Amino acid sequence: MAKLIEPRVLKGFRDFLPEQEAERLRIMGLLAETFGAHGFVPIDTPILEYTEILLGKGGGETDKQIYRFEDQGGRDVAMRYDLTVPFARYMAAHLHELYLPFRRFHMAKAFRGENTQRGRYREFVQCDFDIVGTDAASADFEIVTMIDAAFAAMGVNDARIHFAHRGVFNALLSALEVDSGTDEVLRVVDKLRKIGGQAVREELEGLIGAQAGERVIALVSLEGTNAQIVERMRELVPTAGEALARIEAVVAAALELGLGGRLVLDPSITRGLDYYTGIVFETFLTGLPEIGSVCSGGRYDDLAGLYTKERLPGVGASIGLDRLMAALAEIGVPSPGGGAADALVLCLDESLLAHYHLIARTLREAGLRVEVYPDPKKLAAQFAFAEKKGIPAAVICGPQERSAQAVNVRDLRSRSSTDGVPLAGAAEVIRDLLETGAG
Amino acid sequence: MAKLIEPRVLKGFRDFLPEQEAERLRIMGLLAETFGAHGFVPIDTPILEYTEILLGKGGGETDKQIYRFEDQGGRDVAMRYDLTVPFARYMAAHLHELYLPFRRFHMAKAFRGENTQRGRYREFVQCDFDIVGTDAASADFEIVTMIDAAFAAMGVNDARIHFAHRGVFNALLSALEVDSGTDEVLRVVDKLRKIGGQAVREELEGLIGAQAGERVIALVSLEGTNAQIVERMRELVPTAGEALARIEAVVAAALELGLGGRLVLDPSITRGLDYYTGIVFETFLTGLPEIGSVCSGGRYDDLAGLYTKERLPGVGASIGLDRLMAALAEIGVPSPGGGAADALVLCLDESLLAHYHLIARTLREAGLRVEVYPDPKKLAAQFAFAEKKGIPAAVICGPQERSAQAVNVRDLRSRSSTDGVPLAGAAEVIRDLLETGAG
Repeated sequence: MAKLIEPRVLKGFRDFLPEQEAERLRIMGLLAETFGAHGFVPIDTPILEYTEILLGKGGGETDKQIYRFEDQGGRDVAMRYDLTVPFARYMAAHLHELYLPFRRFHMAKAFRGENTQRGRYREFVQCDFDIVGTDAASADFEIVTMIDAAFAAMGVNDARIHFAHRGVFNALLSALEVDSGTDEVLRVVDKLRKIGGQAVREELEGLIGAQAGERVIALVSLEGTNAQIVERMRELVPTAGEALARIEAVVAAALELGLGGRLVLDPSITRGLDYYTGIVFETFLTGLPEIGSVCSGGRYDDLAGLYTKERLPGVGASIGLDRLMAALAEIGVPSPGGGAADALVLCLDESLLAHYHLIARTLREAGLRVEVYPDPKKLAAQFAFAEKKGIPAAVICGPQERSAQAVNVRDLRSRSSTDGVPLAGAAEVIRDLLETGAG
Repeated sequence: MAKLIEPRVLKGFRDFLPEQEAERLRIMGLLAETFGAHGFVPIDTPILEYTEILLGKGGGETDKQIYRFEDQGGRDVAMRYDLTVPFARYMAAHLHELYLPFRRFHMAKAFRGENTQRGRYREFVQCDFDIVGTDAASADFEIVTMIDAAFAAMGVNDARIHFAHRGVFNALLSALEVDSGTDEVLRVVDKLRKIGGQAVREELEGLIGAQAGERVIALVSLEGTNAQIVERMRELVPTAGEALARIEAVVAAALELGLGGRLVLDPSITRGLDYYTGIVFETFLTGLPEIGSVCSGGRYDDLAGLYTKERLPGVGASIGLDRLMAALAEIGVPSPGGGAADALVLCLDESLLAHYHLIARTLREAGLRVEVYPDPKKLAAQFAFAEKKGIPAAVICGPQERSAQAVNVRDLRSRSSTDGVPLAGAAEVIRDLLETGAG
């Protein structure tokens, strides 16, 4: 006999067991429903692209992490490492077939050969959504309110969207005459939550001097109601008029739609990337601050400048589904069990094969999810199977029941049975049983 | 200004525009629902695996087509080229966490560097489903009846599942004392539909002689009712008792469940692979015979023998979603339009930003899919946008309507308007409008 191959997976990659995958599909379904209800449409792009396309914008870090190789045709290709770069390429390629503003969502896998010790995966699912082709405040607000709606749909009631506007920050740096090193300042401020105010103060002092550092700290440390913070911002950065007007428009809309305390103006949010030019935001779960943001994004000036001369301003966000699902599991958001069937039709007699499938079909037509046990094993083995898979009801039918066009229904949790149920009434008995258990 | 990068995709790879992707997600949703109703649970596996895992079973052809490279850690890795090999590895790895029989489905991308001139894609979506851990006739029948249910769910009423049993074929070859070259004979017979009876006859004569070739031709050319074919098979291959009993069980169950003419016993079905050991089947659309099988599979003796000593017999099938979707488009199965919104809330006055989102939310809460136009552009531009995206209704609200807590609803197809609708009643007006248009 040949030597067995060890059935291992690559480091940073994962199999999904049925319960995990059913939960992932359920969450993705809820998100797709929310996006669809807001007029967002789905798209897809290839997992493999020309490396030139993917690295057009990439920095040194991305270069090292990307899965890149030469294909059979000698092409330099790579697996996508996010959904943003492919989306920019997509917009440039299909602009003439689309319409603006274009609202899209894309939920799909991306790949990075990251250090797995940081708890990151090398294969992960991103969920991106953007409105492209508009500068309007309405679009900024829409992204925020849609994130709010998405978390509500997932049963998460403690999500808080923290937002700021890069224009305020840039106006301050400009007033302080910090002409170079803006990226570096952003990166330092972005660490506020992680390393604390004192450490940020010291790093900023080294970068732009103590006095300028204090002014930056004063801005990013503002606290209070949204209205109070806007007031203080206006005092600290009087030159940020346009950005402040945009913030006020978003804050007013949130008030009118009753988003209340769920949209938090928070000048410490900067999003480390130079890419963003307008509002920026991160989403935190109040019960789990330590996991960081579960949905982040912002407004940008030009999505696809590498591939087209057409200027495409937009606003969008991204959910890392793996982190979100870990968070949902941790805060114990209830999820309906692993996609298992409602009832198992047991196999007492192999010659009744067709009848068992007929019973299953009858129950399915009444809206139940029904599985047929294929082998005439001992009943104890069939019950054990149902228990392991989490199926709550068994439908039992021998030759006698068959003659009577009846079945016995057994509640596998309470171990009580209802015998001699006419086949036409079996679905109702099972439904009652499911509701009793759920109560 | 830097030179633009051409936004091209790799040969054999595709972007999906919103309408295409919405349709793909719709079909996948219907399939997942059908599978779930039969107790099948979803799983997922990594797109990238150790090459050793993927090529364990691969022949020379697969070797050449696989996307294979060395990763940053020096590992020999490859992108999966089907969902069967990863499933075998998965079962071996997780057997202790699962239960048998295990019913799973997996809808995901796979990759082959095939010659695109044959109309094949290098990135494609497979949809696989299997029942593993049972030899029972019930499982064979279940796969067939579930395929029937899946096509019904997709609105396809002319799908015919042609099936045979490899045991009959093997028993005939054995009786003819064709000890070697079974694979080659299978491959020739598999071409019957393509090259015709005469060409197959000639090839078989060269392989196993004229007399044996005639016997093979006699078997694979049988026609008639399922019952007649079983009778003739029994005469032609009297040594195939067990296989014939299995065929009879499946045919009887199909009769009892009214699958009638949709399950066709067809001895010309062999499935070129040596892998299968029991029933084998292919699914044809009566209106589109030229595209070949849209769902194929069969029973195998042992799924994961390369990775575990545990014997895992099973039965399963695979749908190539790309071919299926091309077929659905060709036969004109009606599909609900590209996931666009039901209504567009127009932007007349930017200061009403929040109110427009409030209108949208009110309509969404009544179950409608609603999009908000973000910019106060000319109405003609906003109407043109709605038309391009296929949104049938517009909701119009200026300061006056707002004061009256009312909106105007416009049917963008008939260009008729209903003015002064109270906001609370707007959803009903839109729903009426949608139904009129659909009728």
